[in-house]
Amino acid sequence: METVLNLLVLDQAQRESFVQALPMYNQIFAPDGYMAENSEPVPPEMYQQATIILGNPPIELIVGSTKLRLLHTRTAGLERYLAPGALPPQTMLAGCSGAWGAAVAEHLFAMLLGLLKRLPAFYDQQKKGSWQALGREKTLLDANVLCIGTGDLGSSFARLCKLFGAHTAGIRRNAAIPAEGIDEMYGVKDLDRLLPLADVVCLMLPHASETTHIMNLQRMRLMKPDAVLLNGGRGTAVDCEALAQVLKSGHLWGAGLEVTDPEPLPPDHPLWKQDRLLLTPHTGGGLPELTFRRIADIVLENMKRYIAGQPLRNQAF
Amino acid sequence: METVLNLLVLDQAQRESFVQALPMYNQIFAPDGYMAENSEPVPPEMYQQATIILGNPPIELIVGSTKLRLLHTRTAGLERYLAPGALPPQTMLAGCSGAWGAAVAEHLFAMLLGLLKRLPAFYDQQKKGSWQALGREKTLLDANVLCIGTGDLGSSFARLCKLFGAHTAGIRRNAAIPAEGIDEMYGVKDLDRLLPLADVVCLMLPHASETTHIMNLQRMRLMKPDAVLLNGGRGTAVDCEALAQVLKSGHLWGAGLEVTDPEPLPPDHPLWKQDRLLLTPHTGGGLPELTFRRIADIVLENMKRYIAGQPLRNQAF
Repeated sequence: METVLNLLVLDQAQRESFVQALPMYNQIFAPDGYMAENSEPVPPEMYQQATIILGNPPIELIVGSTKLRLLHTRTAGLERYLAPGALPPQTMLAGCSGAWGAAVAEHLFAMLLGLLKRLPAFYDQQKKGSWQALGREKTLLDANVLCIGTGDLGSSFARLCKLFGAHTAGIRRNAAIPAEGIDEMYGVKDLDRLLPLADVVCLMLPHASETTHIMNLQRMRLMKPDAVLLNGGRGTAVDCEALAQVLKSGHLWGAGLEVTDPEPLPPDHPLWKQDRLLLTPHTGGGLPELTFRRIADIVLENMKRYIAGQPLRNQAF
Repeated sequence: METVLNLLVLDQAQRESFVQALPMYNQIFAPDGYMAENSEPVPPEMYQQATIILGNPPIELIVGSTKLRLLHTRTAGLERYLAPGALPPQTMLAGCSGAWGAAVAEHLFAMLLGLLKRLPAFYDQQKKGSWQALGREKTLLDANVLCIGTGDLGSSFARLCKLFGAHTAGIRRNAAIPAEGIDEMYGVKDLDRLLPLADVVCLMLPHASETTHIMNLQRMRLMKPDAVLLNGGRGTAVDCEALAQVLKSGHLWGAGLEVTDPEPLPPDHPLWKQDRLLLTPHTGGGLPELTFRRIADIVLENMKRYIAGQPLRNQAF
């Protein structure tokens, strides 16, 4: 009997569903609350015995496995497992795009509204016991929001902005494919033309060589002096040294980063000390109940497809 | 020819509209950008000459006027002019309820989302160059929001919460009158029963003896340990000493105050030093373009009614 190593965070009912979906496998569940980053480890030998792994196993424990045929991550990003030699050659790889968008989008939206309403500066004042008006705040009503990357994250974020009266434009590789929440879709070639028109620029990109530092010093300077820059995808999309320089110069209304390059920033990185900045430690929106439920749903659906011999969703190869 | 003293912030087109709406009056406009709190003063003798004043004149300049027949404020709150002896006996009073709701609601909503996403604690961390997860964040999806006061502010705020998936309940004097954005309306007698059910409690009340410290220590303790308390109406609705005590004890997820009691808080007030608190200096949402446009529209509509002998909107007496 072949083995499934199921590392997902599941409640009892969800475990039952996985058992029923994969009846011909011996399914081993991780201890309650297990995630790759924490809690008690799964015995290392189990990784090499598994035919299917559901979750994000440490690379070193799956390298050279002769049995692993499918790895389905809980993350949307797959870069760790896409590196040459990380996965055995016979292994299929699929991810959880669609699970994280709602939580990350809400978190990014909270950062955006906080910046528009000057909450970081009000908070600095509050800590000094000072009660002073700080000038006009901003609204999303009639604002132009540019989403660079329009997958689950970008689309979820754009939908929230539209609820507050913004107009949304998106940039994706193939501008002919629409996305929910994006009013107008453009290709990458239009980026430099669109940046000066946006009140908010939000990056929601996976890591790749062509997205690395796509927001460089020159492009940040193309933005309106009172625009807001956000990054919620992978940290490498924004040149963080350049952003520190731009904020220090007084350009931009503010910036919100849920991800940075590198992660974490070194202690002496100039970004830490900038004003008009909100910086959170890549906690993915911090809504595990919501996100884990969606992960379980997506992986379960894909297991049913796998058993039925159908193509998987979110399959990398 | 009788005189209108127009203290509103208006652009040229808006001024023309006011001139056309009141053709039989000599209309004196305040200098560009005039507001009662700042800029170059209007000559004091003008206040005593005016038949109609549009805006918020200093009480001492209108006391005893024999000519003033109508005062139409730019604020929604009228308490200054309701005090005995403040207005001459022949003077009608109307306010600008409806002008401020959108801006204040967005500001309060930004505070709420910031608290739910732990942004104050992340910001404290950021200033120390620290990159640590802080545990789960909260969402408005399926949350219960209780709005105490369901006028323009409360209704506007409730509508924003509903966009993010919250369920809304309202409390008003007459529970039989519905309000946009409020799913279920209750009377004041239901307050103590509803407080333990709410994930967010938002006060949007005018100042009055019966609303003063309506949120006292006992009622804050009725709230869920992880609920959020907000105040965006008048500061007197919340006992700020009690709130400091409650936050210090670890009760409540957090609090956001756009108004306080007193205003400003004295330098040694215990609230200044509390964590899980956002405190902004009663700047009314800080969106003058949006708010001033709505003020001009409301006052102009009421001037047309006044000339036509129709009852005014938002009329106190």
